Amino acid sequence: MIKYSYNQFIRGEENMDASNPLYENQCIHVEVVVFTVDEGKVKTLLLQRGVGPFLGEWIVPGGVVFNNESIDEAAVRELEEKTGLKKVFIKQFYAFGEVNRDPRMRMVSVAYLALIDMHKVDLQHMTLKTMDSKWCDIGDIPKLAFDHNQICDRALEELRHYVINSNIVKDLFYKQFTMPELQRVYETILDRKFDRRNFRRKLLSLGLVEKTGGIEENSSHRPAEYYRFVKDEYEEIDIF
Amino acid sequence: MIKYSYNQFIRGEENMDASNPLYENQCIHVEVVVFTVDEGKVKTLLLQRGVGPFLGEWIVPGGVVFNNESIDEAAVRELEEKTGLKKVFIKQFYAFGEVNRDPRMRMVSVAYLALIDMHKVDLQHMTLKTMDSKWCDIGDIPKLAFDHNQICDRALEELRHYVINSNIVKDLFYKQFTMPELQRVYETILDRKFDRRNFRRKLLSLGLVEKTGGIEENSSHRPAEYYRFVKDEYEEIDIF
Repeated sequence: MIKYSYNQFIRGEENMDASNPLYENQCIHVEVVVFTVDEGKVKTLLLQRGVGPFLGEWIVPGGVVFNNESIDEAAVRELEEKTGLKKVFIKQFYAFGEVNRDPRMRMVSVAYLALIDMHKVDLQHMTLKTMDSKWCDIGDIPKLAFDHNQICDRALEELRHYVINSNIVKDLFYKQFTMPELQRVYETILDRKFDRRNFRRKLLSLGLVEKTGGIEENSSHRPAEYYRFVKDEYEEIDIF
Repeated sequence: MIKYSYNQFIRGEENMDASNPLYENQCIHVEVVVFTVDEGKVKTLLLQRGVGPFLGEWIVPGGVVFNNESIDEAAVRELEEKTGLKKVFIKQFYAFGEVNRDPRMRMVSVAYLALIDMHKVDLQHMTLKTMDSKWCDIGDIPKLAFDHNQICDRALEELRHYVINSNIVKDLFYKQFTMPELQRVYETILDRKFDRRNFRRKLLSLGLVEKTGGIEENSSHRPAEYYRFVKDEYEEIDIF
């Protein structure tokens, strides 16, 4: 039943009411696809549902947007609830809005991605709605609930764009690193090889990284120099 | 009041109900920022609201997503209702989700952009909710209702990315064109100048355009050759 007050009518106000069957029971969700790099593999964070629908199946972290927060704030909150991580850089990449993608309500998911150091994460294995969580090699992702396989695939595609066009990789390194360590991360995410000298020259000439002045300690081979990212903030820059 | 049936409870189903105050009265909108190039200017389509809120103020075309259509389908429908255009290529670019961006309901807008030939458009100047419409030079956009200035600004930024990284400009040319006409369009959208010979060489070497074999008729100067885009479908390609 559409409610439309006389006051609205005389002010010429458009009639919008949540009980209009054309658009009743709509709901806004966020998903956060979290990537890390570990032992030469790109991995993503998956949660096992502890409630139905899809009880026991795997999903990417996400949840409903509350009415007192922006969609960005909701994504940050969800990420913190599921990983304990605060102040993580997240990037919105796509809204998923097929008609029947969620059996509970008409749900549009605005999807974000983050690239983080898994060792900084205090993973919650069991919460009110989750019975387990794990870092899953992107080559081994199982059939996920809802349209989350599609969300994962798109997130990985976008991550590769951002790795090429920005300094987002810094989010994996909260301190110094050696050039071979950095190169391995780029090679893993982009699934290609770089020439060692060209790689080093490129990143230095772009002003993306700089030497810290320190060198590797306790090295059995010739100790490598340490580097750090020049900027703390996310920055767009064409790397390759 | 949250409704939660016994059957849901014994199946372990998550309680989701549109009357939950945390997320009640949410609604999904789409906006379509339509650009064209005309007389050396980039212009965007604006509508004047014929209903409140913001009666008489200007907005970009958009509307509520119906429950029986995907967000992409909603964007296509809105564009057709406002311009008469069917089968236009649209590109989703960002979801806007601040808390109070719409006074009627909690509204997230998924925004799309399109680049079209304004001469193919059968503009609707007056509809149920619109009292006027116009093509507005992007340098002269007035203060718009809601957060639509922000949506316009972002759309223009994204359009420039797509013009550099894809063949989206083809959507402005439904038939043949001369190389100077094409160059003028790129220069207008990107707000920069290109060397005439380099521009021509670049677009040909990328296989983006090809000669039709025809030449300009009724030309007072040396007649220019006609070109067309090689592909009909949207394609990502680094142009500049």
